[in-house]
Amino acid sequence: MLERGRDVQLGMIGLGKMGGNMKLRLEKAGHQVVGYDRNPDVADVGSVAELVAALDAPRAVWVMVPAGEPTTSTVAELAGLLAEGDVVVDGGNSRFTDDAVNAALLAEHGIGYVDAGVSGGVWGLTEGYALMVGGSAADVERLRPVFDALKPEGEFGFVHAGGVGAGHYAKMVHNGIEYAMMQAYAEGYELLEASEYVDNVPEVFKSWRSGTVVRSWLLDLLDRALDDDPELARIKGYVEDSGEGRWTVDEGIRLRVPLPAITESLFARFTSRQEDSPAMKAVAALRNQFGGHAVKPE
Amino acid sequence: MLERGRDVQLGMIGLGKMGGNMKLRLEKAGHQVVGYDRNPDVADVGSVAELVAALDAPRAVWVMVPAGEPTTSTVAELAGLLAEGDVVVDGGNSRFTDDAVNAALLAEHGIGYVDAGVSGGVWGLTEGYALMVGGSAADVERLRPVFDALKPEGEFGFVHAGGVGAGHYAKMVHNGIEYAMMQAYAEGYELLEASEYVDNVPEVFKSWRSGTVVRSWLLDLLDRALDDDPELARIKGYVEDSGEGRWTVDEGIRLRVPLPAITESLFARFTSRQEDSPAMKAVAALRNQFGGHAVKPE
Amino acid sequence: MLERGRDVQLGMIGLGKMGGNMKLRLEKAGHQVVGYDRNPDVADVGSVAELVAALDAPRAVWVMVPAGEPTTSTVAELAGLLAEGDVVVDGGNSRFTDDAVNAALLAEHGIGYVDAGVSGGVWGLTEGYALMVGGSAADVERLRPVFDALKPEGEFGFVHAGGVGAGHYAKMVHNGIEYAMMQAYAEGYELLEASEYVDNVPEVFKSWRSGTVVRSWLLDLLDRALDDDPELARIKGYVEDSGEGRWTVDEGIRLRVPLPAITESLFARFTSRQEDSPAMKAVAALRNQFGGHAVKPE
Amino acid sequence: MLERGRDVQLGMIGLGKMGGNMKLRLEKAGHQVVGYDRNPDVADVGSVAELVAALDAPRAVWVMVPAGEPTTSTVAELAGLLAEGDVVVDGGNSRFTDDAVNAALLAEHGIGYVDAGVSGGVWGLTEGYALMVGGSAADVERLRPVFDALKPEGEFGFVHAGGVGAGHYAKMVHNGIEYAMMQAYAEGYELLEASEYVDNVPEVFKSWRSGTVVRSWLLDLLDRALDDDPELARIKGYVEDSGEGRWTVDEGIRLRVPLPAITESLFARFTSRQEDSPAMKAVAALRNQFGGHAVKPE
Repeated sequence: MLERGRDVQLGMIGLGKMGGNMKLRLEKAGHQVVGYDRNPDVADVGSVAELVAALDAPRAVWVMVPAGEPTTSTVAELAGLLAEGDVVVDGGNSRFTDDAVNAALLAEHGIGYVDAGVSGGVWGLTEGYALMVGGSAADVERLRPVFDALKPEGEFGFVHAGGVGAGHYAKMVHNGIEYAMMQAYAEGYELLEASEYVDNVPEVFKSWRSGTVVRSWLLDLLDRALDDDPELARIKGYVEDSGEGRWTVDEGIRLRVPLPAITESLFARFTSRQEDSPAMKAVAALRNQFGGHAVKPE
Repeated sequence: MLERGRDVQLGMIGLGKMGGNMKLRLEKAGHQVVGYDRNPDVADVGSVAELVAALDAPRAVWVMVPAGEPTTSTVAELAGLLAEGDVVVDGGNSRFTDDAVNAALLAEHGIGYVDAGVSGGVWGLTEGYALMVGGSAADVERLRPVFDALKPEGEFGFVHAGGVGAGHYAKMVHNGIEYAMMQAYAEGYELLEASEYVDNVPEVFKSWRSGTVVRSWLLDLLDRALDDDPELARIKGYVEDSGEGRWTVDEGIRLRVPLPAITESLFARFTSRQEDSPAMKAVAALRNQFGGHAVKPE
Repeated sequence: MLERGRDVQLGMIGLGKMGGNMKLRLEKAGHQVVGYDRNPDVADVGSVAELVAALDAPRAVWVMVPAGEPTTSTVAELAGLLAEGDVVVDGGNSRFTDDAVNAALLAEHGIGYVDAGVSGGVWGLTEGYALMVGGSAADVERLRPVFDALKPEGEFGFVHAGGVGAGHYAKMVHNGIEYAMMQAYAEGYELLEASEYVDNVPEVFKSWRSGTVVRSWLLDLLDRALDDDPELARIKGYVEDSGEGRWTVDEGIRLRVPLPAITESLFARFTSRQEDSPAMKAVAALRNQFGGHAVKPE
Repeated sequence: MLERGRDVQLGMIGLGKMGGNMKLRLEKAGHQVVGYDRNPDVADVGSVAELVAALDAPRAVWVMVPAGEPTTSTVAELAGLLAEGDVVVDGGNSRFTDDAVNAALLAEHGIGYVDAGVSGGVWGLTEGYALMVGGSAADVERLRPVFDALKPEGEFGFVHAGGVGAGHYAKMVHNGIEYAMMQAYAEGYELLEASEYVDNVPEVFKSWRSGTVVRSWLLDLLDRALDDDPELARIKGYVEDSGEGRWTVDEGIRLRVPLPAITESLFARFTSRQEDSPAMKAVAALRNQFGGHAVKPE
């Protein structure tokens, strides 16, 4: 039985930085979590099959493994092991387009599916994880105690955004917005650093944490980073992207929605990872051709 | 005497939405404020000269009138009325380049000058005004009780950012960041509204207020706006800009700092105010020329 | 037989603005073209089956119908009608990702496939069509007389860009570049029109047609458009996009190539087609919330 | 006398890459040019004063020195040496805002002033220089034989764009457009190079020189550059900017004209010159703070 009084039982596959902490938060709330991970040091059971066997029906299994093949293959394995009436949650960073595929596969076996976009990073263990979920009302309702334990205290931090895929969709847009917000602060930081007018840039950012229009959690974090390293001297301007930003822009293209700030933020990350820019080589070559402007040799 | 025990005396010129509320907040803190405004209904005195006469030396006068000519002419008038040892604060939205001019004029008369960028809008009365100030250490120190009364409670919300001009400079960059943050949420909003995946966009924004990376005061306000008008049906997509965004981009150009997200946010505002786009007319004309693509008649 | 001395025989499916003129250009060069179109008034034969029957083996059939379903279903029909040794050319504006699918289907029947990106628009009949083709060396070589007749005179205007898909890929990038070039002139046009410095904007563009760095065919066309309508008063700033621009940006995202100018040009088109901008509604709502700035009612 | 039958006499100050070739082109056309340069090896006279003395009144002097102080001080020197009825041309890359200042100074002495934006680079000697000029009708008319000799053959390549400043203004916008056109080709180049679909990128660009929508002089030059160095292996992606692009964006800001493609092209140049990006350091720091994402050490 998933529900035992107020407490519930849940299987958790993937006990990395996110999954491991989410298990801890659920257990602290009194729920029972059976965890599986490829790393036997952190796992409660030795295989996905053992995990399924350890749960009482109707079972609920939360998948928290990398998006793409790892998630897809885990869902496929669960489709063969779970039974009618069970439910699977994909809490990873999957692309929303994967959700319909996963849900359809599980539905063939009478297994429910909920996609959950999870925000909170390393802070989630103590502050709670914001959850954006997609799926049927019935599936979402069954998992309510799990969501309630994971989410932050208070009225915010959880939304049932729509049918299957809506959770990852909302999380994707959340991340697209996040990219542009980070870029906003970053551009302001660079401009202040470049200017001869402002003496102490970290103090300016610190002051903004109260009373300003730009106050936010990201600003608090930037202040924290500048406390550690006031000139960011130990950090290279090299930024990865994890997929959601790219998918957001793809959706803008699909739906004909102009997304200049989000897209430029993504492009700035692409550029940050280039040793040299082929495009700028071409521009330099052109300037040399028409104006005889010197080029820098490679 | 500016200081009387802990309480101080201040002249305030300009008692509009901002200046009027700042006067109230200062008075609530026990300070004495003599206010002048062109509107006699809200003014304590009938002229700038009367305001100066009503203050004990050394005087402090806060100018809170529109940027540009109104501020410049007020400062010029004060230069003729104030005396050595007095100090003027420009708390308006002046361009930082105006500050050196104002300061030099006042310095000829031995009058000090502090520029103060003020954030907080209609919320400042109760929550406090974030202050970014520029000027000499001595001038800033003298005004400390005023700043302390205006700023929000707690350790944040005030910075002495540098010499004359630094306050308005920091406020300018603050507003540039603000533009891009607003654009970030706005792009996310439009994408979610356009998508067939998410059922209830306002609920998604509401849920983000806790536990997410994008939580912020602006997000709280957007949630508030969507509570009032869930589809923003009563608002036109027409957005003014007050100068700081334009000056921020100008500074990016001057200092060779790429500001794509901020600049695109500014351009989006320009576009929002156009009935029709001459540039897009030219593109439509070109497509018609080479491809025989139909154009929409004006 | 495809080849008869120097002249060749070709089937052409789709006799619209592009296909019809390409047929004329091929016939003018001495080739025989059997044309089919859904519109019987312009067709030589009454069906695709009749077209196939009218050609001598080994046959070559050029498909010039809208991208997507119309092209896909035509290729599928041809797969059932043509025989081993025949070859199909898709000269439409197909997405390069369709080409591998089309080629694989035809290959099951021993039929070759070449994708051809075609540029030239309404000017191609007289000036020739620039061709970017993808496919095997053998398939491309067989069609050489057709390509030679269609392409412009001289050493340029044709490239065998790579395997199947490369032709449409090169054409897609061509169009992405085209978007940004058009946007470049359009932005310059709007700025000149807005400025109080320049008296006669069309004359400036006209003068640029010789000796400048920006001279180009597109500039010639813009001059032509301004001759017709010096203030573009008869044209609305509303611009469609045909797919290649969107696909180009999608490819930039896939390959992590920053494409700011091309992407902003695409977004400008999206914006040009909006009655009102939901994003700008959100920004206006936010400004109203924090600053009490008035909004324009819808 | 400026005019002697059809031939004219002109003083030329600044005999560098541009001025020197322009002198040659004028002399080839039968005009007499007295040249001064700080480098005595290329100068006809030893000083600006000697140059003025060597000309018959009414004199015409073309200033072709770097923009900013060198041009301003040369004009000031000429104001003291020339006489009523003479005329000065500033053919350098001056900002249009300098022109009114120069013109006013000369007008005090009854000396005319024409600003000339000159395009053509190293190709101008043989192909002619495109000229965009601003000034009074009378001043422009007097210089007509000079302009006719410098400009390319044919009906294009010269425009009297408006009053003083209009020439440099039109040239500024020309350069802004040029930035975005170069960026357009450069982005297409990078995308083609990154793609697995296209085998030979230089051949694609070469093919585009005829029959395509993107054919242009810049494309011819890019083909030429790729002939020399097919992978641009000898060129670093480092691009200077000479001012006009920055001024164009400043004008967009002043006149509220959105210029996304031109501005992003300028920002791409700024970025190309950075060793590391402070903004991207800030983004990396933020990602590390909230997600525990590893940063690259500097």
